[in-house]
Amino acid sequence: MDIDPLARAVAQGDRRALARAITLIESGRDDHRAQAVALLEALKDTGREALRIGLSGTPGVGKSSFIEAFGLMLIARGLRVAVLAVDPSSARSGGSILGDKTRMEQLSRAPEAFIRPSPAQSQLGGVARRTRESVALCEAAGFDVVLIETVGVGQSETAVAEMSDLFALLLAPAGGDELQGVKRGIMEIADLILVNKADGALREAAVRTCADYAGALRLLRKRPEDPEDFPKALTVSAHTGDGLESAWTEMQALADWRRETGHFAARRAEQAAAWFAAEVREGLLARLTRDAETRARMEAMTARVRAGEVTPEGAAAEILAAL
Amino acid sequence: MDIDPLARAVAQGDRRALARAITLIESGRDDHRAQAVALLEALKDTGREALRIGLSGTPGVGKSSFIEAFGLMLIARGLRVAVLAVDPSSARSGGSILGDKTRMEQLSRAPEAFIRPSPAQSQLGGVARRTRESVALCEAAGFDVVLIETVGVGQSETAVAEMSDLFALLLAPAGGDELQGVKRGIMEIADLILVNKADGALREAAVRTCADYAGALRLLRKRPEDPEDFPKALTVSAHTGDGLESAWTEMQALADWRRETGHFAARRAEQAAAWFAAEVREGLLARLTRDAETRARMEAMTARVRAGEVTPEGAAAEILAAL
Repeated sequence: MDIDPLARAVAQGDRRALARAITLIESGRDDHRAQAVALLEALKDTGREALRIGLSGTPGVGKSSFIEAFGLMLIARGLRVAVLAVDPSSARSGGSILGDKTRMEQLSRAPEAFIRPSPAQSQLGGVARRTRESVALCEAAGFDVVLIETVGVGQSETAVAEMSDLFALLLAPAGGDELQGVKRGIMEIADLILVNKADGALREAAVRTCADYAGALRLLRKRPEDPEDFPKALTVSAHTGDGLESAWTEMQALADWRRETGHFAARRAEQAAAWFAAEVREGLLARLTRDAETRARMEAMTARVRAGEVTPEGAAAEILAAL
Repeated sequence: MDIDPLARAVAQGDRRALARAITLIESGRDDHRAQAVALLEALKDTGREALRIGLSGTPGVGKSSFIEAFGLMLIARGLRVAVLAVDPSSARSGGSILGDKTRMEQLSRAPEAFIRPSPAQSQLGGVARRTRESVALCEAAGFDVVLIETVGVGQSETAVAEMSDLFALLLAPAGGDELQGVKRGIMEIADLILVNKADGALREAAVRTCADYAGALRLLRKRPEDPEDFPKALTVSAHTGDGLESAWTEMQALADWRRETGHFAARRAEQAAAWFAAEVREGLLARLTRDAETRARMEAMTARVRAGEVTPEGAAAEILAAL
């Protein structure tokens, strides 16, 4: 496949071309991989910069409704919005995006939006790798905002934070005045805590929960890449739309501050360097299983190790010397 | 250094030679590493088989007192006992073992015992690697029991379980009837739960805690490598010695059953295969930082990635092609 026409179509903002490009990136085939790398290289100098927003929230906090309402609000302001996901537990097939399209029905029909579900892989590393490459493609396609959502479990938040310019944590109002079981690690990467469902009967609880988290955030160590009043907690309602504009204003203020202070570019450079190192490590380890001869040698040696004919250390030294 | 005399001295059970051999294994120098691998190879066919017992317990459960009492009991039965540790948080210098010797004063003076603290490394992977190699040396030196202790935090229990024939979890009596915050993952690798301090005022609480855990263990999925009544919960007292003999009897019963059913050998073969794979992976990745030319190439490429001159994916492909 000649990747030049595809690269041009993506750069023109063609959503079908973008979808095809992401499918290419998600492919496991070696020849596809080489084309995907060439595509990313071809699209790196568009000069476009989206705001990459990581968004985490456990099931039940109303994440889909929030993304739908937030996305439509951004579109109403003239912006183009892409929604990607990192969810290694997702058991979808590679092609189906029905789930994500039905849960964000209006947004998915908007021509200014692009929604792509989590790539179907069982390993977080694989999912994260594909998603961050998709983020770069969405940016090259001229989307102004890329929302990268994840469920609040395991290490996926860290992976999403590592491909985001800022990170928001969506919470539901809590019953009492106790903090929900939010792990300290997640509190530490969150730039904004958004307490959803601040409407109707839950409004008061949402305001109280928001105040609790604002208090908890003040106890955290100040980060050098943050302006005075960040991280911050806000209430929002995906249902009434209350607070969505404020959330966007805060996100822009934070991004602007980081751009002016150089933290924005520094963070992206840091992320790129980390991805490069991870790609090299993964590529090196992949050689152990990709090449048929190496794989056969590993298998034969494993059998000898199992039989106690050679120590694990001696066997490894022999394999490494031959590699 | 000629490793043959050292290998012979270790095989004769010379504790000073064993200590020297472990120091060699813990060295980070490349030439020492080659000698360490040769030493392990030279000692792999002694035909000796120790019982490798993993032991976990959070600070405060009386782990040192338990090991001291349990070790002395084994010695009184004519057995030789080695004690090793996996604790990546340990901030000791490489040479000092004062801490471990003072906390197990009697055991450390017994000629039938060998005590070695956790190797001084910050990475769990490095600590575990050195310790499992030390386990093999202790076995070759003729120790009948190798106790591998770890603190109950993070992934260190899994690492210890992967170098043990059986795994015991030491707990303190709980105040109420609720289970202590033992992670499900640890419950699932434990073969024996030992509730310590079953003496004096705490005796009753220990018995109750033991019953609670026995109940919890019955809810766990039956493992094919377990006889009918395992995993099992027992009370012990490092202070009075109560239950120590029973604990040893149960450990032997479990080990005998696994030997007869082939699970013992199968587990060791599985562990050796996993170590081999891990050694190859680590050795391969080490090439990225060991070789000066590769390191320089990585650094130059990282600078280009940071500057946005090349994508992380394109940079990785270039490096991998050159490796």
